[in-house]
Amino acid sequence: MESEIERFPVLRITQEGKSNTEETVAREFPVTIILNDEELVTMLCSPKDMKYLAIGFLASEGLLESKDDIRRVLIDDERGVVRVEVAVKESAQEVVFKRLITSGCGRGASFYSTADVHSQKVESQVKISAKNIFALANEFQHGSQVYLATHGVHSAALCNTNQILVFNEDIGRHNAIDKIFGKCLLEDIVTADGIMLTSGRITSEILHKVAKRGVPIIISISAPTNLGVRIADSLGITLVSGVRGKKMNVYTNDFRIAEL
Amino acid sequence: MESEIERFPVLRITQEGKSNTEETVAREFPVTIILNDEELVTMLCSPKDMKYLAIGFLASEGLLESKDDIRRVLIDDERGVVRVEVAVKESAQEVVFKRLITSGCGRGASFYSTADVHSQKVESQVKISAKNIFALANEFQHGSQVYLATHGVHSAALCNTNQILVFNEDIGRHNAIDKIFGKCLLEDIVTADGIMLTSGRITSEILHKVAKRGVPIIISISAPTNLGVRIADSLGITLVSGVRGKKMNVYTNDFRIAEL
Repeated sequence: MESEIERFPVLRITQEGKSNTEETVAREFPVTIILNDEELVTMLCSPKDMKYLAIGFLASEGLLESKDDIRRVLIDDERGVVRVEVAVKESAQEVVFKRLITSGCGRGASFYSTADVHSQKVESQVKISAKNIFALANEFQHGSQVYLATHGVHSAALCNTNQILVFNEDIGRHNAIDKIFGKCLLEDIVTADGIMLTSGRITSEILHKVAKRGVPIIISISAPTNLGVRIADSLGITLVSGVRGKKMNVYTNDFRIAEL
Repeated sequence: MESEIERFPVLRITQEGKSNTEETVAREFPVTIILNDEELVTMLCSPKDMKYLAIGFLASEGLLESKDDIRRVLIDDERGVVRVEVAVKESAQEVVFKRLITSGCGRGASFYSTADVHSQKVESQVKISAKNIFALANEFQHGSQVYLATHGVHSAALCNTNQILVFNEDIGRHNAIDKIFGKCLLEDIVTADGIMLTSGRITSEILHKVAKRGVPIIISISAPTNLGVRIADSLGITLVSGVRGKKMNVYTNDFRIAEL
């Protein structure tokens, strides 16, 4: 955990007065992804599992589909550079350019024009009981040492119906999920009947990310947006939010929630 | 507030059993900014004050400096399009292209290569007492009706030493702050001795945003990252975080915290 945190002196002020003490905060690190020798993007992240982050990000953006597309990954931890060579026809530059600049003016989700064309309806018939959701969420919320130390990171976990399979955390809620999918992709962990747990809000972008990996159930400790709910509904994904203590709200496709 | 929220039926599950009820969630809306007839970016935001968002975003990105740079702003609320005409030499396309693609490989904050060259040390000698910080933070946390209804938005406020001057909220913590600065810029509200309150985490990007508008004090309900602390320190900005109940941590430049 040491590489992901940093301690700073602080002046703490309470009703009792002032004192000099120390606080632990999450580290933020710029990582540049170079795809096929072209600089693609620099993202701010937690400095851990950069390989998973890069691969998960590229998969989420539709720039690679499977492990077979990856020819080589080179990581420079010190400088924050991940070089990925993949088998794609389109140059990375073209893809990003299209996504940010020429996406259709004013259309629904134009930001995703290249990324979400593959969002297909999720057909998995997996079911999970409310009891198991409460148990997984409880384990999940105590799983992040960095969060407990800093209150400055988001967590994500891929689960089956009764245990956490892959856990990660990052200063960005998107990055945490990309790290999960990056690991799954590199280590052949199947996501098609999986359950994604996230500490962050569920927005349209998060829905497209999980849909792309065929995840049928997404569960958040926090709230969804209206587009999150609408997209979950239309893509056949079960969306559970506001899981706190012994309460949860099932927004969509509740046929996957088994009897208690 | 109605335009910023949407109600959905939910299946609520508690220890007592299941019930059909309704939840209110924040609306998420894609807004495309067209700068001098070139499509610049599509961002996901709360559908309110899009004009402030667009102008604040352009100012944060270094694409306009003052109200005098703005020739015309046209808003299409229905389609989510804001057209801005500004007096700039560089085409928007070039600027975004540089920012995302050719920013220096692996350097510190390369993502900001075009945006943060103007971050100068903040010299304001304004002071605020801890008592007033607690009072402002308390008022701030009860100020967002959308947050209270949805738990799905971030808030931001520009204050002087004893009151909130401008308040806004958005599904994105960056957007909430951009909306504040957009309004300040359009309505000639001076930010140079101001205090920025935010519900969100304080990362490097947030620091660059407030530094660009000369704001000397930033206060967050939540936590900073290490780069947030380091940049606040080097730019002479007072960073106060973790303001909850009657406790706060002053990370940097505590000379601006007056005696209780």
